Amino acid sequence: MSYFDKPGVYITGIGQIKVEKVAELSLREMGAKAIRIAMADAGVEEVDAVYLGNMLSGMISHQQQLAPIVACEAGLKGVEAVTLEAACGSGGAALRAGFMSIMSGMCDTVVVCGLEKMSHSDKEFITQSIATASDWETEGGKGESFVTLNASLKRRYIDTYKLSSDSFAQFGINAHRNANKNPNALFHKEITLEDYLASKYIADTLRIYDASPICDGSAALILSKYPPSDKTRPHVKITASAAASEYVGLANRRDPLAAEGIQRSGMKAFKMAGITTKDVDFFELHDAYSIIAVLSLEAMGFAPKGEGWKLGEEQAIMLDGKLPISSFGGLKARGHPIGASGVYQAAEAYLQLTGNAGANKIVKDVNVGIIQSIGGTASSVFTHVLVSN
Amino acid sequence: MSYFDKPGVYITGIGQIKVEKVAELSLREMGAKAIRIAMADAGVEEVDAVYLGNMLSGMISHQQQLAPIVACEAGLKGVEAVTLEAACGSGGAALRAGFMSIMSGMCDTVVVCGLEKMSHSDKEFITQSIATASDWETEGGKGESFVTLNASLKRRYIDTYKLSSDSFAQFGINAHRNANKNPNALFHKEITLEDYLASKYIADTLRIYDASPICDGSAALILSKYPPSDKTRPHVKITASAAASEYVGLANRRDPLAAEGIQRSGMKAFKMAGITTKDVDFFELHDAYSIIAVLSLEAMGFAPKGEGWKLGEEQAIMLDGKLPISSFGGLKARGHPIGASGVYQAAEAYLQLTGNAGANKIVKDVNVGIIQSIGGTASSVFTHVLVSN
Repeated sequence: MSYFDKPGVYITGIGQIKVEKVAELSLREMGAKAIRIAMADAGVEEVDAVYLGNMLSGMISHQQQLAPIVACEAGLKGVEAVTLEAACGSGGAALRAGFMSIMSGMCDTVVVCGLEKMSHSDKEFITQSIATASDWETEGGKGESFVTLNASLKRRYIDTYKLSSDSFAQFGINAHRNANKNPNALFHKEITLEDYLASKYIADTLRIYDASPICDGSAALILSKYPPSDKTRPHVKITASAAASEYVGLANRRDPLAAEGIQRSGMKAFKMAGITTKDVDFFELHDAYSIIAVLSLEAMGFAPKGEGWKLGEEQAIMLDGKLPISSFGGLKARGHPIGASGVYQAAEAYLQLTGNAGANKIVKDVNVGIIQSIGGTASSVFTHVLVSN
Repeated sequence: MSYFDKPGVYITGIGQIKVEKVAELSLREMGAKAIRIAMADAGVEEVDAVYLGNMLSGMISHQQQLAPIVACEAGLKGVEAVTLEAACGSGGAALRAGFMSIMSGMCDTVVVCGLEKMSHSDKEFITQSIATASDWETEGGKGESFVTLNASLKRRYIDTYKLSSDSFAQFGINAHRNANKNPNALFHKEITLEDYLASKYIADTLRIYDASPICDGSAALILSKYPPSDKTRPHVKITASAAASEYVGLANRRDPLAAEGIQRSGMKAFKMAGITTKDVDFFELHDAYSIIAVLSLEAMGFAPKGEGWKLGEEQAIMLDGKLPISSFGGLKARGHPIGASGVYQAAEAYLQLTGNAGANKIVKDVNVGIIQSIGGTASSVFTHVLVSN
C-alpha cells in the first residue's frame, strides 16, 4: 500500500483569521470565516462534521449550542456539529474529537474549529468568567483569578529553585519576536530584556509580559482520512493524540510543579507516536503564562526539573534554537483567544511542517512537531504529534 | 470468533441518581455518585476516560472544565476528561464521544456521564440560561424562551393539520404513568385526561403537561470494547451512533415541522445499524415538549407527517403498545436535567434490553431500542441504536 492509500488522520488545510483585541465580525462570522478559509485551502466542499472548541460563549455571548450555529453560518447545515469544552484547552479537545471521529471510521473529512470572542464583554466579567476554569469552590469563588493562580505557581517555582523572579524573561521576548513576523498575531511589537525588566507587575512577581492577552480569534483545520489525491498538495499526518487530567484545584495536587497532567498526556503521546524527546524538532506549547511554558518543558522531558527556564536563557527556544517554541508568537504574543488557541497551534505547526511558515520558518529542517493545549493550570492536557510527509 | 471476543462498543454497567427538584448533593458530588454506581455495576475499577455531557455549569455554577472536576471527585484523577456541549442534547453528544473513543482504538473502557444541576439558581436566570440554546441573535435575545418556541411549533402543527390543541394529551399521560413506577423519576403522580384538560397553559396552547420540568440529576454508563468476561453479566451492544444538525433558529428552516435534523440523524443511524423502523421495539425519544415527541415519531418514519400524535391516541406508545416510548417516564416525567437526559435514556434502554426494567418493563420482548437526544428545537440530534445480547 502506498503512502497515499494509507488511512490515518491528515491535516489537509488550515484557516486562520487575525487575532484581534476587538474583532469586527460577530462570534459566528469569525468561526465561519476560519472554516471557509480552511475548506478552500484543502480544496474540499463537503465535510462530515464540525468539532468546535469554545469555552465562554454561553457565559459572555448568551450562545450555547455554538457548533451548529457556526456550522450553519459556514454553509454546512446538516452535518454533525458539537462543542468541546476544556477551558483554555478546548481547541486541543476539539482536535482530539476530530482525530477520534476519523480513527473510529465514523467520518472521512471533518472540520476542527477553535473560536473565542471576548472583547465585547466587561473586563471584570471576562476575568470572572475565565476563572470558572479554576476550581470554583476553592479558587475562583474565593477571589482567585488565573493571574493570581499562575503568580502563586511562579512564586513556588522561584522559591523552590532559588531563582531571580525575572528568570523567565526570554519566553516573553521570544514570543514577541516571532509574533512580530506573523500577520495573524495580535502583537506586532518586539520587546527587549530592558522592556521586560521595566514592565509592570500584575500579581506578585508576575509581569505583564509573563501573561497572555484577552483577545478574539478563530482558526480551523480540515482533517482527512487520506492524504490529498493531488500528491503535490501540502499535508501533515497526526501520529499521536493523547489527553490527561489532573486535579483542577492547585491545593489538591501532590506537587504542583510536577505538572502531572502534562507529563501523563505527553508520555502517552510519545508512546503512541513511537518517539522520544530527541525526535522532536519543535514544540508549540501552551505559554498562556511563562510559568506554564517552563513547567511544560520539564514535564515533557525537554529539561530536568527546575531547569526549564534555562532553555529560555540559552535561547534554545528561538527559531534558530534546538527546540523552537511559540514559533508564530505563541499564546503570549500571537494571542490567546481561549478556545481557539489549540487550533492556532495546529495550524502553525502545519505551516512549519509543510515548509510554508514564511518569515516564521524554523531555521533547521523540521519533520516532527508536538502541539499541546492546556485547560486551567494544567488540569486538562491535550497533546498531538504532527509529522511531515 | 465468538460473540465475546468481538470488539465493538458495549454498555456494561449503568448508574443513576434520583432526579430531584432540589438535589442535596453538590454538582460534582452528583456526577461522581452516578459514576461510582456505574463502575460498581460494571465491576470495573479503572477507566481510560470520562466524557461528560453538561450545558449550564459555566453559566449557573461558575464552573467550566467540569469533566476533570467530576472525574477527580469520582477518584479518577489522571484520566482523559472532557465536556461535551450540545444544549439539551449534551448527554447524547457525550455518549457519541465515548462510542468514538472506543471505535477509534484510543480507549478500552470509558465513563459517559450526563450531569445538570439547576435548582440553586434563580428561576428567571435559569430560563434565560436555557434560552442560550436558541439562536440568541434572533430568538433568545429577542425574548423567546424554549416554552414560547415550542408553543409556536405546536401552534404551527395544530393549525397545519387542523387539530384540537389537546391532541397531544396522551404523551404527558403516558410519561407520568411510567414515571410513577420509576424510583429515579422526579414525578410520582399519575395524571388523567381530565387532569390534562384542566391543567394550565404556559404559553399559547402549550399546557404545563406538554413541557418537561427544571430539575437536577446525573446518570452514567460504562462503555467497553468487549462484552464482560463473566458471560452472565448483563450488557447491550451499541450498533449505531449518528449525529446531525439543523439551523438553530426556527425562522431559518425550510419546514420546521419536517424536523430535518432528526430525520437526518435517524436515517444515518438506521443505515449504520442495518435496520428499518419495523425492527425497532421501543424508542426513548426526546420528549422535552410533546410537540418534539410527535415530530420525532414522524421524522423517524414511525408515523406519516401530521399523524405522529395518533400513536398517542391509539396508545401505541404505552408499555404494552407496539412502539413504547418514555418507558421510565421520559424527559416529561422522569425529568429533564438537561445535560443528563441523554444518558438517563441510555441507562433506561439498557435496563429494558437486559430484562432489568422491573415495574417499567415493556410488555413484549425487546431486542432493539433507539435512543435520541436533542439540543434546541431539534438543531443538534444524536441517535443511538442499542441491541440486546
